[in-house]
Formats: sequence, structure tokens, C-alpha cells
Amino acid sequence: MTEKIPDTTVTRLSIYYRALDKLKINGTETTSSERLSELVGFTAAQIRKDLAYFGQFGVPGRGYDVVSLQKEVAGVLGINRRWRCALVGVGHLGYALLAYKGFKQQGFDIVCAFDNDPDKIGKTWQGVPIYAMNEASEVMKKEKAEIGIIAVPAKAASGIVNIMSKSGIKSILSFVPHHTNLPEGVNCKHVDLAMELEWLSYYATRK
Amino acid sequence: MTEKIPDTTVTRLSIYYRALDKLKINGTETTSSERLSELVGFTAAQIRKDLAYFGQFGVPGRGYDVVSLQKEVAGVLGINRRWRCALVGVGHLGYALLAYKGFKQQGFDIVCAFDNDPDKIGKTWQGVPIYAMNEASEVMKKEKAEIGIIAVPAKAASGIVNIMSKSGIKSILSFVPHHTNLPEGVNCKHVDLAMELEWLSYYATRK
Repeated sequence: MTEKIPDTTVTRLSIYYRALDKLKINGTETTSSERLSELVGFTAAQIRKDLAYFGQFGVPGRGYDVVSLQKEVAGVLGINRRWRCALVGVGHLGYALLAYKGFKQQGFDIVCAFDNDPDKIGKTWQGVPIYAMNEASEVMKKEKAEIGIIAVPAKAASGIVNIMSKSGIKSILSFVPHHTNLPEGVNCKHVDLAMELEWLSYYATRK
Repeated sequence: MTEKIPDTTVTRLSIYYRALDKLKINGTETTSSERLSELVGFTAAQIRKDLAYFGQFGVPGRGYDVVSLQKEVAGVLGINRRWRCALVGVGHLGYALLAYKGFKQQGFDIVCAFDNDPDKIGKTWQGVPIYAMNEASEVMKKEKAEIGIIAVPAKAASGIVNIMSKSGIKSILSFVPHHTNLPEGVNCKHVDLAMELEWLSYYATRK
């Protein structure tokens, strides 16, 4: 693949995957970019363009086979396999993430969690053992964690990215707004929930 | 404004707002699309195009005044005022959202919360009173809530959008993957945290 794939295409692939899942559950065998367009709200041309980055999926005059297109999209997204994830921070957000069924459904297993609270260390929650922060490096390596999730308050976040990076984790989902000095080769995706509300206030202001 | 603004532009405006905030805190008085580009990772041309949808902000040869550009972006995003929000669901996720400082910082105040758990009803958390679900419609109207946040398990979500809509809420942030039959005029933004992980697995697969 030589062409640079836009980040927005990757996000749309996740949306197509979910729409294909619904079609599959309803027993639909074939679909079209027009039908997908009705389901996801992007234009049929956009959908064809996004899919074309990764190959020739449809059959002219017949459309897409739902099951095989979903498999292809899963392969592109890297969710045709399972991923081992390490969670740092077991406060309310951390608990919510451990209980979140959507991760497991899409192939993301939280296999270890870390906190500084002595009342939590040594316990398990949703089947996931909670360890002390000073065991993080050793446990992350032993558990072969590939994805890290940071769910601590911003002031407690310093150093966590480095611990993860040194333990072999190169992909991080962070609820902390900003990490300075991201180590080379580490990919960090920030979740900023206020931005989602700003999207709503933008449209509410225009009504 | 006649031209349709892409959703992705709205999201980028939120990112520019945060970058301008950093510049302001550092005492920077003027900036350029090139400097903003370094801070946010989008091209300078993209930044100029996004801002041009809303007016002529920069001064040729001098760049952007940080404080006034930030104010303009806040106005476009609708965060130059405060918004009253109602939260439904005070489980771990709901608690995390009540404690989340990022909402208040950007002008979003959760003023009332709702749950079915008798142990929670009548209490307050982070200064926010928790009411019974059957009081929702009355309280949301009385509190003049404009934005609703849904943080319940998917199976408990049925009917909440309608209650919100009938109580005057037209903008909804939902952690439930899908709502069927969204009432006319209601804008619903879904948060699907697994999609954020899929973005990471996409890139991790390509390394």
C-alpha cells in the first residue's frame, strides 16, 4: 500500500463494520454502497472510495457479499484477531472500561489493570486482576500486553507512557488530554469527551 | 452561512481551540497557520481552509491574534456560553462523567442526574443531585437542560431519547451504540470507545 490512508477513512471503516454486522444479523447476504450509504449516512461515492484503498471488494452488478466484506474490513482494521490490553487507573472511569462489553466484542481483552490504591491491589474486577503500579512493567511484559489504556487523572499521568513503551506497548488509548514527549514509535490516541459535547453545541448554536 | 461545513472541520476546530489555549497560557500573542500546524498535526492549508468557513480571522503578514482567534473559535463552537446538561445513568461511567473536569472547563455543566437505583436516588455526587428516572421529564424541564448524556447499558436505553426530546433536549451524547427512531430535530452523537481502539489496531497491524 503506497497511498496514505486518511485517518477519517479508518474511522469510517469502523462504522461500515458495524453496519455490515447489522445486515449480517438481519440475514442480508448482499448489499451495495447505496444501501450502506442509507445505513451510515456517508455518500455511496465516499464508501466506494474508502473501500477502494484496500482492494476490489464488490462484484459489478451484484454488489458486496456482506459476510466476506465484513471479514475484509475486519482484516484491514486488525480486528480479525484478539488484542491484549493493559489498563492503568481503576477509578470510576477504569471500572467503567473494565465493564465495557464493546471492547471484548471487537477483540480487545483487558488482561491486567494497575492502580495505586492498596484497597484495590490484589483484587480482581470483571475477571481482571489489579496490580500495584510498581509491578506494571514486569506484569505488562509477562502478559504480553500490546495496547495500553490510560484512565488516570491528568496529574498522575506522568511516566505512564514511558513505562508502557519500555514494556513493549506501542499503541495507547489515553483519557489524559496531552502527553508530552511521546517516545519514538508510540502511537497515542486521545479521547476528549468534551470535544464530543462541543460537536453538539456547534450544531445546537446553529438551530 | 450557505456552505455545508464538514463534521471533520468541527472536530478540528475543537483541536485548534485547545492549541490556542496552550499558546495563550504560554503568553504567545500572535501565531500563524504554520505554527498551529506544528502543534496540531494538520497542514497549514487545512487550518486556513477550516477557519475560512467562518470568516477572515488573520492579518496578512502578521498572522492570528491568539486571544481573539480563540474567542472566535469558541463562538463558532458555541462554547462562549455555558450549557446545562442532564445525565441519565449513574453507574461507573456516569460517576466518571460527573467527576470529569473537562466538561466544566469547556462550559458544560451537568445540573441533574437520573438513575433507577434506590440507593443513589436523593443523593448528590460531585454536587449534582440524583433523581429517580420517573422524575426525569419534570426535572429536565424545570432545570432547563439543553444537552442530554446517556450512560446506561444498551438494554436500558429504550425510551430515554424520547423522554429527553419531550423535555426540550435536542442534543444528546450517548454511550449506547445505537438508538432507533430518533425523533425529528434531535441530534445524537454516539461515543463508541471500541472504535478508538480499532484506530490503534489498524496502525499496529501496519507496523
